[in-house]
Amino acid sequence: MSRERLYLFDTTLRDGAQTNGVDFTLQDKQAIAKMLDDLGIDYVEGGYPGANPTDTGFFSHKPAFRHARFTAFGMTRRPGRSASNDPGLAALIEADADAICFVAKSSAYQVRVALETTKDENLASIRDSVKAATAVGREVMVDCEHFFDGYREDPAFALACAKAAYDSGARWVVLCDTNGGAMPNEIEATVREAAKHIPGDHLGIHAHNDTEQAVANSLAAVRAGVRQIQGTLNGLGERCGNANLCSLIPTLKLKKEFSDIFEIGVTGDRLAALTQVSRTLDNMLNRAPNRHAPYVGESAFVTKTGIHASAILKDPATYEHVAPESVGNRRKVLVSDQAGRSNVLAELERANIAFDRNDPKLGRLVREMKEREAAGYAYESANASFDLLARRTLGRVPEYFDVEQYDVNVEQRYNSHGRRVTVAMAVVKVRVDGQPLISAAEGNGPVNALDLALRKDLGKYQKYIDGLKLIDYRVRILNGGTGAVTRVLLESEDEEGERWTTIGVSPNIIDASFQALMDSVFYKLVKSGAPAEGAVPEPS
Amino acid sequence: MSRERLYLFDTTLRDGAQTNGVDFTLQDKQAIAKMLDDLGIDYVEGGYPGANPTDTGFFSHKPAFRHARFTAFGMTRRPGRSASNDPGLAALIEADADAICFVAKSSAYQVRVALETTKDENLASIRDSVKAATAVGREVMVDCEHFFDGYREDPAFALACAKAAYDSGARWVVLCDTNGGAMPNEIEATVREAAKHIPGDHLGIHAHNDTEQAVANSLAAVRAGVRQIQGTLNGLGERCGNANLCSLIPTLKLKKEFSDIFEIGVTGDRLAALTQVSRTLDNMLNRAPNRHAPYVGESAFVTKTGIHASAILKDPATYEHVAPESVGNRRKVLVSDQAGRSNVLAELERANIAFDRNDPKLGRLVREMKEREAAGYAYESANASFDLLARRTLGRVPEYFDVEQYDVNVEQRYNSHGRRVTVAMAVVKVRVDGQPLISAAEGNGPVNALDLALRKDLGKYQKYIDGLKLIDYRVRILNGGTGAVTRVLLESEDEEGERWTTIGVSPNIIDASFQALMDSVFYKLVKSGAPAEGAVPEPS
Repeated sequence: MSRERLYLFDTTLRDGAQTNGVDFTLQDKQAIAKMLDDLGIDYVEGGYPGANPTDTGFFSHKPAFRHARFTAFGMTRRPGRSASNDPGLAALIEADADAICFVAKSSAYQVRVALETTKDENLASIRDSVKAATAVGREVMVDCEHFFDGYREDPAFALACAKAAYDSGARWVVLCDTNGGAMPNEIEATVREAAKHIPGDHLGIHAHNDTEQAVANSLAAVRAGVRQIQGTLNGLGERCGNANLCSLIPTLKLKKEFSDIFEIGVTGDRLAALTQVSRTLDNMLNRAPNRHAPYVGESAFVTKTGIHASAILKDPATYEHVAPESVGNRRKVLVSDQAGRSNVLAELERANIAFDRNDPKLGRLVREMKEREAAGYAYESANASFDLLARRTLGRVPEYFDVEQYDVNVEQRYNSHGRRVTVAMAVVKVRVDGQPLISAAEGNGPVNALDLALRKDLGKYQKYIDGLKLIDYRVRILNGGTGAVTRVLLESEDEEGERWTTIGVSPNIIDASFQALMDSVFYKLVKSGAPAEGAVPEPS
Repeated sequence: MSRERLYLFDTTLRDGAQTNGVDFTLQDKQAIAKMLDDLGIDYVEGGYPGANPTDTGFFSHKPAFRHARFTAFGMTRRPGRSASNDPGLAALIEADADAICFVAKSSAYQVRVALETTKDENLASIRDSVKAATAVGREVMVDCEHFFDGYREDPAFALACAKAAYDSGARWVVLCDTNGGAMPNEIEATVREAAKHIPGDHLGIHAHNDTEQAVANSLAAVRAGVRQIQGTLNGLGERCGNANLCSLIPTLKLKKEFSDIFEIGVTGDRLAALTQVSRTLDNMLNRAPNRHAPYVGESAFVTKTGIHASAILKDPATYEHVAPESVGNRRKVLVSDQAGRSNVLAELERANIAFDRNDPKLGRLVREMKEREAAGYAYESANASFDLLARRTLGRVPEYFDVEQYDVNVEQRYNSHGRRVTVAMAVVKVRVDGQPLISAAEGNGPVNALDLALRKDLGKYQKYIDGLKLIDYRVRILNGGTGAVTRVLLESEDEEGERWTTIGVSPNIIDASFQALMDSVFYKLVKSGAPAEGAVPEPS
């Protein structure tokens, strides 16, 4: 039996950019758009060209997508202007995009109060804008803003707006619960009415989470006939956020009610990358991932209750509604050493580190990891530090060199021109094969100075780390039991393009940064097969 | 028209205690139970007497509730034991409580795999346990665990379990979606079937959030007939949590679909305390509140979009589904690079900063903000820094004091015991009324040392900042056009409990932190009405 196609429209880069505390750089937008295309999203809304330099820049060259259609967002022409004489509309039409998503009012109240224009002028604006965009060959969709509120007060006008869009050639008419206050049963009933006027496979839903029902509202709309869902990764969005694609996608793929009937662009393989996609976005934004997020949260498959844990060991299906691996997440049972151990073994397998199940050092590694995780280390986010810790505990990392001492100084003062200057300097003393090596450097900040000093002269190890670059540095303050500690995550890259992440945790941010830095250098030495301390260097 | 009574059952202290990372002390439990009673919750489930010392202690004396019924949770008698010879059941019956909530399997698969007993024995266990508890005068309810999964595979047995509870005298039969995987339409259809066998006003719903639909599932069950909802504050609970009462309560009170038909124990007055209740629980658990939580989140009524902001200034109902005050929350219109002059004016009004619309300094403020935001400042997240910048640009902040110089040092070395130690020290030179004041301090890290040194001696300003505490510190690295800069957000609190956030941006993390620190101190001085530099101090 052939299934119906259901389309996914991501607005992380547009509506998600309205999230309080979120602002995307152009580089962020490029990276996220690629990730969404890889995931199998059908439409990636990149932003609002003409509204700010980032978005205008992003729409100057269409990203090279494999699957997704790159979509520009903007307003229909302003009341009282012609389509050809509206600079906002012009910017939209000039944007290098496959599709244009217009936002248009569909509530009589909003037209009167917010737009301060007439119903007829609003309808004309929709028609003119859609025609102007189809005329230049764009796929067009219209977000009918406030559709459900509008339908409640004046159903004929709300429907007239939707029909004006469809009749003028819009591929999609998207019904929006802009203020997020509608209930699923109301959404379902209203969509059924709308579907009497516009075919369901031309209707979309755009829901907000103000009553914690954006996901349910989106699914209710699908049951009532819509075939496009708009949402964001991790439910980003203004106020309480938009419908969360990280919850919707697994439900559509894994729940028979939907998977028997619908097909989406996300394959099973890509679904298994969803947890990674969700975490990557949070890391990019330096937001703490929601541990309790459905499907992708760190705790989504964690069992703490004793009775549940013992049942889960008999058969995971007793307390899991779907298999964690299907979304790239994993099961964790927080009860016994047994469970901790199997988690660690799974990690070793994932890291390709050979081990003997009877090696007593494994028990030591499990205990060490537990202690360190309790202190704030997050090995899940720091693959290279886990790798090093495991290899060290199993006795597989040579002693390379020792840092005997470092000293970092930041000074701010007025210079001789009466201007305020800040200077950061570091001195590092390293011992390689018994020889002390002392280096000093100045940097933009204390961590940069420390990094430059450390890597200035590592003797025989220098050649292995010349290609090492630090590409990201993130800091979080954790309020643990005994007071605040700082967690630093450092991402590095080498000349082969391999990237890895290391971690440091300490009450002192410099110390935490230094730990992460040292792990990165050591990881690179292990990876390059550098000789142990005291070993005769290979001829180079 | 008289409305039907809908009962609220809170399981924050039992199912919520299964949350990964949550551990309640006895004092926590007592304080939270009182808060729930004050709120107007009908049943407060305190825990599992007999399972651990905290819960056993909590059930040794019933709290003095004004409204709520204190409820003990536990298992039905074990297979193969008589009710009178089961220590778990005995502990439950001895607990000082108004009601007992039993958990019982209602899925044939679970009975076979997890309990390893027979269907008949499971039914007998339910009947015996309910009778034993009603015999001692307790109000009895039975959580039918895995009811919806059970109904899917063997409807007759699931219903038989529910009926066994009801027929033996249980006041409430609670249908549980234990694994959280059911869809709202399935919940609704299944509840309608169950209501053919057990009157709806004896049925309850217990939903989990594994597909982000616990709230929708609970409301679907209410529409299908149940009259008790079980949930937790802030949606605490194992894995992805339980149905969130902080979302359900306002929806039941404020949405006509429900408020026209149902009455709950929470009055309008108490509803206005909900935001406070939600934040208090998070503070008690030292969890960062979810800013985006429906109704009670800090961002739930925050508008960032320029076009939305201008509409909201015309009429808040344009972009708000309910009034923020109804749940004790508040409206906020953010200043961001997407917002122009009108938004800045609105912020000034909100911050109670008087201004003249024709003041040319306003144009300077708008330009200054745009420039700073382009450099990485995010004033939307830093209310106090916005406040200071605005007052400074409008010429309303006196010169208090000047920091002439600071010097921060972090050193790591081996101490005389051969142990690696890290020491952070700072020296700050301040000039107050022409007098130089030099202070030094040691801290956990460089920022802590700098903060301690700066605030050690500020002369006549010292008394105004004695109550100042730093409560959160966040760092992000921004990869802007001209290289990486560090953005620091600092949250502070004073002796009156007021909180504010300040921001600093610089390539140097110490400098960025210092800017945020200085803004916080200056904000506190403005707030306290401290005298300008050179002014004669008021007698203290």
